[in-house]
Amino acid sequence: MPHKQMVIQRAKPSRETAHVPMLAIAGDSAAGKTTITRGLVQALGSERITSICSDDYHRYDREERKALSFSALHPDCNYLDIMEQHLQLLAMGQPILKPVYNHSTGTLDRPVLIEPPDFVIVEGLFPLWSKLSRACFDVSLYLDPPEPIRYQWKVKRDTTKRGYTKEQVLAELERREPEAAAFIRPQRAHADIVLRFEAVEGHETGPLSATLLLRPTIAHPDLSDVLGSDTREAIHLKLLRDEDGKPVDAVHIHGHAPRELTRKVEEAIWSHLDVDEPVPEILGEVEPGVRSEPLAVAQLIILYHLINAARH
Amino acid sequence: MPHKQMVIQRAKPSRETAHVPMLAIAGDSAAGKTTITRGLVQALGSERITSICSDDYHRYDREERKALSFSALHPDCNYLDIMEQHLQLLAMGQPILKPVYNHSTGTLDRPVLIEPPDFVIVEGLFPLWSKLSRACFDVSLYLDPPEPIRYQWKVKRDTTKRGYTKEQVLAELERREPEAAAFIRPQRAHADIVLRFEAVEGHETGPLSATLLLRPTIAHPDLSDVLGSDTREAIHLKLLRDEDGKPVDAVHIHGHAPRELTRKVEEAIWSHLDVDEPVPEILGEVEPGVRSEPLAVAQLIILYHLINAARH
Repeated sequence: MPHKQMVIQRAKPSRETAHVPMLAIAGDSAAGKTTITRGLVQALGSERITSICSDDYHRYDREERKALSFSALHPDCNYLDIMEQHLQLLAMGQPILKPVYNHSTGTLDRPVLIEPPDFVIVEGLFPLWSKLSRACFDVSLYLDPPEPIRYQWKVKRDTTKRGYTKEQVLAELERREPEAAAFIRPQRAHADIVLRFEAVEGHETGPLSATLLLRPTIAHPDLSDVLGSDTREAIHLKLLRDEDGKPVDAVHIHGHAPRELTRKVEEAIWSHLDVDEPVPEILGEVEPGVRSEPLAVAQLIILYHLINAARH
Repeated sequence: MPHKQMVIQRAKPSRETAHVPMLAIAGDSAAGKTTITRGLVQALGSERITSICSDDYHRYDREERKALSFSALHPDCNYLDIMEQHLQLLAMGQPILKPVYNHSTGTLDRPVLIEPPDFVIVEGLFPLWSKLSRACFDVSLYLDPPEPIRYQWKVKRDTTKRGYTKEQVLAELERREPEAAAFIRPQRAHADIVLRFEAVEGHETGPLSATLLLRPTIAHPDLSDVLGSDTREAIHLKLLRDEDGKPVDAVHIHGHAPRELTRKVEEAIWSHLDVDEPVPEILGEVEPGVRSEPLAVAQLIILYHLINAARH
């Protein structure tokens, strides 16, 4: 009879050496963070990926904020030290007891336990604010729609889902502008990817186009085989200088880009991953039944980075 | 003119290297944890010492617990992993966002920020439960009153301060007994100091006596100069075997020990510290105007250890 080896079972997975792939999605209020997040969570499965909103780290509830001279867009209005600590713990595979800000009631509710998941998304106003927080992410995205588009999105959401009037929303946007300029928009400089939706001139009511800046801060999938730089193409790749003069790859995706063309790009990205499953169909969904090709490509590139981070 | 040196100011104290002295006070419900804690906080000043109750780490609120087959005395009824994590962070001088259990309403409320204090007390049902948690403390106390005394204390407190009837309290004590035996009392074995109040035979209504077991797990102040082993003395020191057979120093303090005698003992302990201030007068206060000599001596020995830990 062969010698039976003793199997030493581990009570828990080795948290100490675990690294959990983490994605930051930063951007101002109503910039599209939830939409991007939703598709990624659906693609990976909510049992594997946990998404955290940095609003949960609000220091004051809605009632208390009324008496303050600054808004929730000010770092002092948030427990950013604690957020940083929690991101570090999650990155190391440790559980956290996460505070909860309730957007319906404006109150700070009882905290919830977050067990170490396979992937973490942190979306909100401040994920890229501090150096220690940025160090926790494997890939980071900044959502940079032009202000008129963001205003339109915010009015739509806050009047239909949060019970405000259009005038209230516009007044709030105006009040917050100095803080958005001082604290939110500077985070654009720290993202690996910047996504900017834009209306197509002459087609303002049609689907939005988008420019996806892929910064050389991380290794993006090579798209030069599948994309040319001819700007007459519905999807094209150009070498640009970013606002700050730094070199960057820019993928432009026209709102009317045909599905077969984006499929070719998606498959090129996906093929670099060497996975058996096809490209998740859920990507690109803006709302049930409404698809955005630029959104699909942006989500797929992020998914590429998350899956890669899980392997290395 | 002498050369003016540049002073490099540090934005924050060096948290990385800080060690915050920490005290555990473990014991069953109504064993006297709050009374011991209060005097220590008053002696050191509430701006320097933070006391945390392990009940704050309850996983369920009072309403939810009614549907469970176990009580708050069961480890599974508490976020003990998170408590452990928070104790480690505090010991390293890091802030935490501490959950809050509200004893008046039985609800889990919004968490509070605890900035790194000079000293931390963790009192409750579970501070000595896990090895990692125990490793955070510089000194630990287990409160071990005989069950009839504890029952009396619990009935008094819960009927006057928490709105229960005597019958409800006694039924609850009975229901909890198996869990107290399984999870709370085993922590006695891990304390550096065990304090047991006892009624004096024939003087059941007078002040309680106490035995203070000083285990050789930490270096206690030497009391052999000031205390003899003659058991007829109101305060005496004896070498004993503990319940588990291990050698231990036992200080017995008679409930009627005269103030001048305890003062002599207190000054002997205090003199080992070489501090300028006198022994804090607040120690020993059971309630306003009521003093317990055994309580004063126990608190002073703990204070000795906390001050020593802050120096080394």
